Amino acid sequence: MIRFNNDYSQGCHPSILQALTEINSTSYAGYGEDEWCRAAAQEIGKYLDCPQAAVHFIPGGTQVNVLALSAALRPYQAVLCADTAHINVHESGAPEHAGIKLVTCPGREGKLDPAFITAQMELYLTSTHQDQIAQPKLVSLAFPTEYGTIYSLSELEAIHALCEQYGLYLYIDGARLGYGLGAAENDVTMADLARLADIFTIGGTKCGTMFGEALVITNPALNVGFRHYMKQGGAMLAKGWLLGVQFYTLFRDGLYFEITRQADEYAMALKSAFAQKGVSCYIESCTNQLFLVVEDGQAQRLAEKYIFEQYERVDDTHQCVRFCTSWSTDPQDVAALCRDVALML
Amino acid sequence: MIRFNNDYSQGCHPSILQALTEINSTSYAGYGEDEWCRAAAQEIGKYLDCPQAAVHFIPGGTQVNVLALSAALRPYQAVLCADTAHINVHESGAPEHAGIKLVTCPGREGKLDPAFITAQMELYLTSTHQDQIAQPKLVSLAFPTEYGTIYSLSELEAIHALCEQYGLYLYIDGARLGYGLGAAENDVTMADLARLADIFTIGGTKCGTMFGEALVITNPALNVGFRHYMKQGGAMLAKGWLLGVQFYTLFRDGLYFEITRQADEYAMALKSAFAQKGVSCYIESCTNQLFLVVEDGQAQRLAEKYIFEQYERVDDTHQCVRFCTSWSTDPQDVAALCRDVALML
Amino acid sequence: MIRFNNDYSQGCHPSILQALTEINSTSYAGYGEDEWCRAAAQEIGKYLDCPQAAVHFIPGGTQVNVLALSAALRPYQAVLCADTAHINVHESGAPEHAGIKLVTCPGREGKLDPAFITAQMELYLTSTHQDQIAQPKLVSLAFPTEYGTIYSLSELEAIHALCEQYGLYLYIDGARLGYGLGAAENDVTMADLARLADIFTIGGTKCGTMFGEALVITNPALNVGFRHYMKQGGAMLAKGWLLGVQFYTLFRDGLYFEITRQADEYAMALKSAFAQKGVSCYIESCTNQLFLVVEDGQAQRLAEKYIFEQYERVDDTHQCVRFCTSWSTDPQDVAALCRDVALML
Amino acid sequence: MIRFNNDYSQGCHPSILQALTEINSTSYAGYGEDEWCRAAAQEIGKYLDCPQAAVHFIPGGTQVNVLALSAALRPYQAVLCADTAHINVHESGAPEHAGIKLVTCPGREGKLDPAFITAQMELYLTSTHQDQIAQPKLVSLAFPTEYGTIYSLSELEAIHALCEQYGLYLYIDGARLGYGLGAAENDVTMADLARLADIFTIGGTKCGTMFGEALVITNPALNVGFRHYMKQGGAMLAKGWLLGVQFYTLFRDGLYFEITRQADEYAMALKSAFAQKGVSCYIESCTNQLFLVVEDGQAQRLAEKYIFEQYERVDDTHQCVRFCTSWSTDPQDVAALCRDVALML
Repeated sequence: MIRFNNDYSQGCHPSILQALTEINSTSYAGYGEDEWCRAAAQEIGKYLDCPQAAVHFIPGGTQVNVLALSAALRPYQAVLCADTAHINVHESGAPEHAGIKLVTCPGREGKLDPAFITAQMELYLTSTHQDQIAQPKLVSLAFPTEYGTIYSLSELEAIHALCEQYGLYLYIDGARLGYGLGAAENDVTMADLARLADIFTIGGTKCGTMFGEALVITNPALNVGFRHYMKQGGAMLAKGWLLGVQFYTLFRDGLYFEITRQADEYAMALKSAFAQKGVSCYIESCTNQLFLVVEDGQAQRLAEKYIFEQYERVDDTHQCVRFCTSWSTDPQDVAALCRDVALML
Repeated sequence: MIRFNNDYSQGCHPSILQALTEINSTSYAGYGEDEWCRAAAQEIGKYLDCPQAAVHFIPGGTQVNVLALSAALRPYQAVLCADTAHINVHESGAPEHAGIKLVTCPGREGKLDPAFITAQMELYLTSTHQDQIAQPKLVSLAFPTEYGTIYSLSELEAIHALCEQYGLYLYIDGARLGYGLGAAENDVTMADLARLADIFTIGGTKCGTMFGEALVITNPALNVGFRHYMKQGGAMLAKGWLLGVQFYTLFRDGLYFEITRQADEYAMALKSAFAQKGVSCYIESCTNQLFLVVEDGQAQRLAEKYIFEQYERVDDTHQCVRFCTSWSTDPQDVAALCRDVALML
Repeated sequence: MIRFNNDYSQGCHPSILQALTEINSTSYAGYGEDEWCRAAAQEIGKYLDCPQAAVHFIPGGTQVNVLALSAALRPYQAVLCADTAHINVHESGAPEHAGIKLVTCPGREGKLDPAFITAQMELYLTSTHQDQIAQPKLVSLAFPTEYGTIYSLSELEAIHALCEQYGLYLYIDGARLGYGLGAAENDVTMADLARLADIFTIGGTKCGTMFGEALVITNPALNVGFRHYMKQGGAMLAKGWLLGVQFYTLFRDGLYFEITRQADEYAMALKSAFAQKGVSCYIESCTNQLFLVVEDGQAQRLAEKYIFEQYERVDDTHQCVRFCTSWSTDPQDVAALCRDVALML
Repeated sequence: MIRFNNDYSQGCHPSILQALTEINSTSYAGYGEDEWCRAAAQEIGKYLDCPQAAVHFIPGGTQVNVLALSAALRPYQAVLCADTAHINVHESGAPEHAGIKLVTCPGREGKLDPAFITAQMELYLTSTHQDQIAQPKLVSLAFPTEYGTIYSLSELEAIHALCEQYGLYLYIDGARLGYGLGAAENDVTMADLARLADIFTIGGTKCGTMFGEALVITNPALNVGFRHYMKQGGAMLAKGWLLGVQFYTLFRDGLYFEITRQADEYAMALKSAFAQKGVSCYIESCTNQLFLVVEDGQAQRLAEKYIFEQYERVDDTHQCVRFCTSWSTDPQDVAALCRDVALML
């Protein structure tokens, strides 16, 4: 069976394994206060054009999301996000467990409608009993979204402008950042994110590391006491250098961008193969996740050789399925699937 | 200026004031362990037909809502409710602050659509990654709703049946319970609520008391350690008998039902007066809150003599306004407003 | 049976009951935005000599303590207090439930040892892994303490100086403030508290009101968003004027100071009566709570006519008991007890 | 410089690195639902003699502590522990951030005094206002303790008996479990822990893994919804097999016990070397951490070649320092330090 079900089904990029192997017997200071974390932050910094940015390395994705929101918000402040956001539907209520209210609008292909920001802020600002409403204070979006779509630079600029206007923080969940940056139609850079967001993440787990996410805080107000938040949130890895050396390896020579861009290309090849057999996209993605509408019989045939994710029923005879490529995708597997799509569907 | 803006703009019913005055110099044991609380629970119990029910008295409405949810739920469990629910929009994020996730659907005239319960439960039960979704475990609805509408007995029975089917608790927020029970078209009794809900409230603040809500817990599992929750939540009044004597006064002779039914009648009289001038209802309420669509000019003229609440804009020339009657409404004020509606609009 | 078991066993001072009665049928704006709250804040302000002070009125004592700490602290910051503090031992873990760590030292007669502040701060500041320690950020003490003792002005000045030195907030829990201010040996004024504390409370429940505490915030940084905290904490009373009119009545003519000073005198009279029979104090209090060491037989005889609190065993034949006077104590009851002490012990 | 400052300064045991390397390019199902986690749980199970035990793998130590306490306790319940416990002093208030109150007693060489359990329970059970006290419900202790000491089997049996008597859960923090089990004077087995504790951890980070702790839940009541807790707590690793394969490697052939026992022997060798120069122990440890009282000049000389931890001042001329051995300690480094102690001190 060949796995296309997600982008975190293998260990790590060989270069990372090699780096971990090389330093395995070297002793380091703990808790992220080591030379690898410093070096990795420096390499990442080269892409940010943002001297005041702080970079932290955190083991898991749910952790980093909750920490980012927690560090930004007072207990009575709320997050504006799409209802399809990972923080809303795939974290078992982790933000609320941390006391954070999410106010959601229906996602448009996974994206947040800027009109929702305006509407919520006007509702709040014109309320006669403002104290009784959780104060919207942060906009959270994902780049790329949970449906593989991306925001254009002008869309991000527009959301950023609304945040400025209303005094909102902007958080960007970049769990799959590389795949967004690597998309053919993308016009956003890491420096754009650093300029537009107060805080954003650079996903590792789904982009080549064994585990670990980088958090970039460009707004110094959100960095106050942040390492306390990390420790309290169980997110300060004792052997922090394990995270540092992984991100250093990915960013020293641009490996991060290369392997994710490659995965996007594989996904587009698959998309073409499906399209040629008349299989349409449920949502038009340009990154490594494909959401396809297939007949039940087609799904069944594909499932004989491939593992993919069944998303939801579309109608009585069709379903939406997700195929994911990743940094670890074998080109031979892509070729095989393209061939089978041509033959089997 | 005459106030029709809410149902909590005056102190308390004269009988309650008299009762408080009579016992003002008597000493009692603290923390709700006094004879008045016991007597009040007993009087309320006569309407419940539910021997195992526990009754607690709690100072405020937001407190009682959060305590009810907290006592019922583990940290990873979620509430299903309408997006118009008080707990969702008027408590500054209090449930989330207590770690509770609310999963909402658009309210239909303030009411929860049972189809939403089914949909969410099927989503959860068929999920391949169930651990990553907050587990729906409690349905919360208001009787009457925040828009003055009520559920029929058969509607409540249907929701109760879904809760049984899916292992969900049912919580009913009765902040305005009396006005619901007193509505001409209501067919629900307190015994019905005790039979159908695991936990529900009997509102005092909006129904005749100075302050205070009664919480009825019919499911003994939700009563475990409940007084600890109360104390921890700052909801155990030192002078608990102040709550007891108020509820005793309201329930001893049925005063609670009488004064709220009267307010409903006043509201219906106002509704007729408005209807005769062609003013329609934004939402068709049968209780003490009227949501009316008036022209801006009409609103302006009424605002010269009356205080009422401006809800939201309907279109360029119309707005939705709320007029509330209550246990403290003076019939002369109702007559005056009816007259003015006839003359001024 | 005559109650000396606590200072919250009766309704409220007759002047307050009269004020509540007079305004019972008047309509007011809700949520503390009424003229009585404003007037009460103004009257209290006259004693503060602190123009920037904000005054909020809150139903309960546990609520006000938790809100004060919450508004002051970030999640990773801790409170320094005596282990005998009400927040540590009598609130069912309410501060921790709100996410706040209390770091305690053994109380000396209920008081906080300033050396503990220095020790904890030096431990924190010299730690090589500071991020792993909850950062001490607030000193909490009670005036008077839970054992009826008071801090002298110079003691408060010294603690204040340490807070300044280490960047700590100072919170003073004044649940029984009147009894502290009214003590014969007291040299502290409300203006001193306003000058030395960032935030402190003026107790009502134990000092003459039906219910309600006033919270004075002298440090504007702690007042940001405070009404949001109140609502979220279930501490924004719908009929806020009920609190306002009570505190207005107590502070307009100094009634607050008069009735509590009187209670202190009663307590001192009782203390003398006991002392003449050789009954010594467990802790030497100068306010309305007496902690006495009595033989078991003596306790038994007194319990035939009086209700008082049994605190703890002292040795095989002696126990510590608490007798409380209050604003509602009847001088005839004091006289009776003095007489009985002389005759019965 | 040679590091003896802690037991988590190197990556992982070579066998683990090899295992990770071997499976690096193999695809697995996510979130701990893979064959390695199953196999690891099975290998651990062989030592437990407890068929109903559930085993979970969790990235970090603070996470696992907080999750264990959270899964066991309702919000109003408290933990009894030594004030020296890691959860109390080295986790930046993580338990309290999760709403959990810790009630502490002075640790005796890091150990919890059973008399404290009895005292707290009697205080609670005899309280007249039980609802106002956080209910003690769980005893937390560490094996070995933070000071390297261990409980004997009879001591654990005695604490277990108290827990049974009072209805308390017993949690054992085994962050350094291997070093405790491997101590020459230890008479406790993993099966003993499974029999006596409701929930306990098997530390990985300090005992040979790159990262990761195993949590054993022997009381099924504490396992209800546990994977929801994990996800919500950000503790469900996407690539769960990374944890599984590490623990499998450690437990398949007893490697876990071997490498930690060896470290204990190294520590005892160092202890002898210091003792021969008259250096005494601050606390008499039998595991891999040594707490030694050295003269300032001695500390200074050792610091020229060795990195160790300065704990606290003992007097004007002496300090307490910690030397740690570990699974990664090089015997040549031990020999060098023994030699230098003999020569330099």
